[in-house]
Amino acid sequence: MNTKHAHLTPTEHIPFDTLRTTLAHIFERHGTSAAVAAVLADNCASAERDGAHSHGVFRIPGYLSTLASGWVDGHAIPRVQDMAPGFLSVDACNGFAQPAYMMAYDALVAKARANGIALLAIHNSHHFAALWPDVEPLARDGLVALALVNSMACVVPSGGTKALFGTNPIAFAAPRAGHDPLVFDLATSAMAHGDVQIAAREGRPLPEGFGVDCNGQPTTDPRAVLDGGALLPFGGLHSSYKGSALSMMVELLAAALTGGHFSFEFDWRGHSGAQTPHTGELIIAIDPAKSQGRGFAQRCEDLVRAMAGAGQQRLPGERRYRQRAQSLREGVALPAATWAELQRLAQA
Amino acid sequence: MNTKHAHLTPTEHIPFDTLRTTLAHIFERHGTSAAVAAVLADNCASAERDGAHSHGVFRIPGYLSTLASGWVDGHAIPRVQDMAPGFLSVDACNGFAQPAYMMAYDALVAKARANGIALLAIHNSHHFAALWPDVEPLARDGLVALALVNSMACVVPSGGTKALFGTNPIAFAAPRAGHDPLVFDLATSAMAHGDVQIAAREGRPLPEGFGVDCNGQPTTDPRAVLDGGALLPFGGLHSSYKGSALSMMVELLAAALTGGHFSFEFDWRGHSGAQTPHTGELIIAIDPAKSQGRGFAQRCEDLVRAMAGAGQQRLPGERRYRQRAQSLREGVALPAATWAELQRLAQA
Repeated sequence: MNTKHAHLTPTEHIPFDTLRTTLAHIFERHGTSAAVAAVLADNCASAERDGAHSHGVFRIPGYLSTLASGWVDGHAIPRVQDMAPGFLSVDACNGFAQPAYMMAYDALVAKARANGIALLAIHNSHHFAALWPDVEPLARDGLVALALVNSMACVVPSGGTKALFGTNPIAFAAPRAGHDPLVFDLATSAMAHGDVQIAAREGRPLPEGFGVDCNGQPTTDPRAVLDGGALLPFGGLHSSYKGSALSMMVELLAAALTGGHFSFEFDWRGHSGAQTPHTGELIIAIDPAKSQGRGFAQRCEDLVRAMAGAGQQRLPGERRYRQRAQSLREGVALPAATWAELQRLAQA
Repeated sequence: MNTKHAHLTPTEHIPFDTLRTTLAHIFERHGTSAAVAAVLADNCASAERDGAHSHGVFRIPGYLSTLASGWVDGHAIPRVQDMAPGFLSVDACNGFAQPAYMMAYDALVAKARANGIALLAIHNSHHFAALWPDVEPLARDGLVALALVNSMACVVPSGGTKALFGTNPIAFAAPRAGHDPLVFDLATSAMAHGDVQIAAREGRPLPEGFGVDCNGQPTTDPRAVLDGGALLPFGGLHSSYKGSALSMMVELLAAALTGGHFSFEFDWRGHSGAQTPHTGELIIAIDPAKSQGRGFAQRCEDLVRAMAGAGQQRLPGERRYRQRAQSLREGVALPAATWAELQRLAQA
């Protein structure tokens, strides 16, 4: 929720299940089926629980605005198609990507276990959430997972002058012996779009080299980036060509390979209020039990220990797990005004 | 070849086949089988032909030094094992990765076409070459390809103080309608190790933020990086954690999943002169013909045109293709002293 005064109100601690149920009511009362509402509410409440604020309840107004605009079909029933022993395709039928993924999840796991590797190609879909929730469950099921999603043109390719790529995140998860899976989720842009929005809301400048304004000039003002400007690919001064190459790969795998739109292809101008990119997503799952390497999860743990031994202070995903434990213990912390607004929306 | 005076001698233009044949003689006369020599010579001559000098004939002394040390088996006969319909494993038997890959190549292509996706896991292998030659042929065969290889501990993980990861490149290739495949090959370190060696040879400083010396202090001196120092992951000041996460993923996929060594695990101290990392490699091939997306290669071409339209000046891989065409037309340009030395080695 982007109400400024929310930051000045006391904090409430909401039990996770209560938050999730409330969000499900909100979705269902604003244009989704009960099935879609359940999936989106779990995803959004989980992000808030884990401290991933840019993809938590902050996103609710965007979801509702998009649903109200008629840009996305909240009642879509995805169509799963078996293309080959290791290749599943889902037409999300202009609905959200997560329900499409859930419909094919068990088949993807079965195919990965039978073949050693399998992929799920989702197209005609809207992804408005964090990407790590798409890979973590696969690692909990013992698989190594990679997910890629393209978004909307807001990133200038290396050496270019015009926004073309999306923030195009890459998420990866691997099972780890005796611990939660090792998970990362990184935008191939210098910054995630949600974090630019949060910086704009809080009036914080961006680091140098992260964005350009509507004239293609470097800027540290997040509002200038959002207002006709663009982000740069990640990589820093000397290596943004690397982030740009990875972003290009995400376009090819998440859009060209799935049958979805590139980040620059969809046109939502006829749907005022639309905020969800209408693109595609690719998920690859690998079964390490088929490997000649013994005990993949133990080897993963070996690497983690070596990383700690080399002085790495924080593992990818570690902060999320710590926040998750705290939220499950104490309830999900929300400004009281935000929680009141969510409850109001759930009744609306 | 790293003879300094080579730069002061005239340039000769050597027909590609002549160069390749000469390199094959060198390998065979310095401890490899004819089969291994043919694969390595083609790889090394191709890199030189394409202007990828850090992986061209510059590597010959390192190959020979390694072979002389007994660290690698130049006569190894790889063992291919079919683990699952989409999962091939190759034990390179302490030989080079490229002959192991070649032995399984046709099976990998067949599995990708039958299943939609397949992977090849190589372990007990030495990779001392560029990675793009491992993906470009798959794209020429109509497949989308991803390759990952770990190397030797020379990169400090994000926030750490000690070298742990290799330069751990990621290579990607996709077929492009009417053109050579779209290919990139990028180190997840701030710089490729071969380029650090070349900078040291030429006395050029590294950019800031690329390396640390043996005390973990920032340095721009390539010799300090090579002499007990380390590289940083790519990403720049604010985002080296992203390069670090990708490097970690390469360790897990190229080593843990294949059954190979992590970059920090092998011990070559008993083999003076050894230079080749004894690790693993993972190659994933996807058949876009199984997709609901029509005409993947045409979609790839659409994206390339949009990238040009957004002002991107140079495509990944473009410089290599341009240099390749020139080398095939005029011969591969080599300093006369280097060519003389190669001819000498071929007789030795």
